[in-house]
Amino acid sequence: MKQIEIKKDILSAHEMIANENRELFKSKGTFVLNLMSSPGAGKTTLLERTIELLKDTYSLGVIEGDIATSYDAERISAHGVQVVQINTGGACHLDSAMIKNALDGFNTQHLDVLIIENVGNLVCPAEFNLGEDIKTMILSVTEGEDKPFKYPLMFRIAKALILNKVDLLPYIDCNINRIIKDALSLNPDLKIFEISCTKKTGLNSWKEWLEKEIYTKKKASFIDE
Amino acid sequence: MKQIEIKKDILSAHEMIANENRELFKSKGTFVLNLMSSPGAGKTTLLERTIELLKDTYSLGVIEGDIATSYDAERISAHGVQVVQINTGGACHLDSAMIKNALDGFNTQHLDVLIIENVGNLVCPAEFNLGEDIKTMILSVTEGEDKPFKYPLMFRIAKALILNKVDLLPYIDCNINRIIKDALSLNPDLKIFEISCTKKTGLNSWKEWLEKEIYTKKKASFIDE
Repeated sequence: MKQIEIKKDILSAHEMIANENRELFKSKGTFVLNLMSSPGAGKTTLLERTIELLKDTYSLGVIEGDIATSYDAERISAHGVQVVQINTGGACHLDSAMIKNALDGFNTQHLDVLIIENVGNLVCPAEFNLGEDIKTMILSVTEGEDKPFKYPLMFRIAKALILNKVDLLPYIDCNINRIIKDALSLNPDLKIFEISCTKKTGLNSWKEWLEKEIYTKKKASFIDE
Repeated sequence: MKQIEIKKDILSAHEMIANENRELFKSKGTFVLNLMSSPGAGKTTLLERTIELLKDTYSLGVIEGDIATSYDAERISAHGVQVVQINTGGACHLDSAMIKNALDGFNTQHLDVLIIENVGNLVCPAEFNLGEDIKTMILSVTEGEDKPFKYPLMFRIAKALILNKVDLLPYIDCNINRIIKDALSLNPDLKIFEISCTKKTGLNSWKEWLEKEIYTKKKASFIDE
């Protein structure tokens, strides 16, 4: 008689594919960042700035997730990096299977860094692992100081929080120190950057931190081999 | 033999409860508005302004939808109106069953207007009818001019679009005319208001339009009776 053991913590199909993606990225030495935020917090503009800062050092690729349009992919493509657009057709987040399919569009053999821009949504994307190395979230200060406790999961699962549009602080009523305090109380290890992507301020410490993360990952892959 | 006819367009459980809610609101003569937007676009501040404008004329109630916290309900409660907080515990939108349950918290016999503040999310709430009379969406101009075609469903199902935070236009790169043009191409009947909730500009035409909607609904209920 054949016995099938039912394990308690069977991985969901999504988790299984995320693990496959992770193994693939590891074998190729590709560092993968999953970038998430509300609509209009500045994901694509941060991506453009990050590309400008990294493209001389690393081979870069971008996956653009949107419900509809290829606006963002066109913006990224203008910077001369490989980009694949995923249109979810209504779905409110990316999942690991979408990423797996999108990888066919890349020459991953020579990809040092892959950045995935998720669908603009502060809720659902936080629930889905894609196989990434790190999750980064953006909060525009125009969204208000009360967001960490109102959308706690995103703040808990992010490794870095970018507080964007800080150039607008003089014109709005937002206590940025409360955001930082509340975010750290949800996630004490969260690395926080205060940035204006349009005014290009605060980007250097983001770049330094990101390069350290990329280096750590590459080193770990090298030791494994 | 008992025959059960399977209709092609069987209503989902959500739609059935939405219709029950709608019938209940109609029988009580309660006008219901479902207010939706991204996180931090200004739903609660618009609500506060709208309460100030309407509370001398109408008996008002508010349902606050949030993943966590009762921050918004506390803000609304300070204005002396009935308020019920729904915490979805992770769910990214309100549904009709949540509304049905929340109604126990109101004295609906004497409620002229019920405003439902949905979870901050420009995607999922657009897919769920709650039994409301009209759906209204807010887009903060800080979210950027490319949003209509990137999040088309919300713009299609809304009866009114409030472009909020227009006081920040001098400090950001946003072509408000493109938003209006794109939104109208998705939904030619969309009524659009340019407002600053914090600076209290543009609110009068919103109030006038809303009162006309309330009047039309009340008149229709009266004729039905």
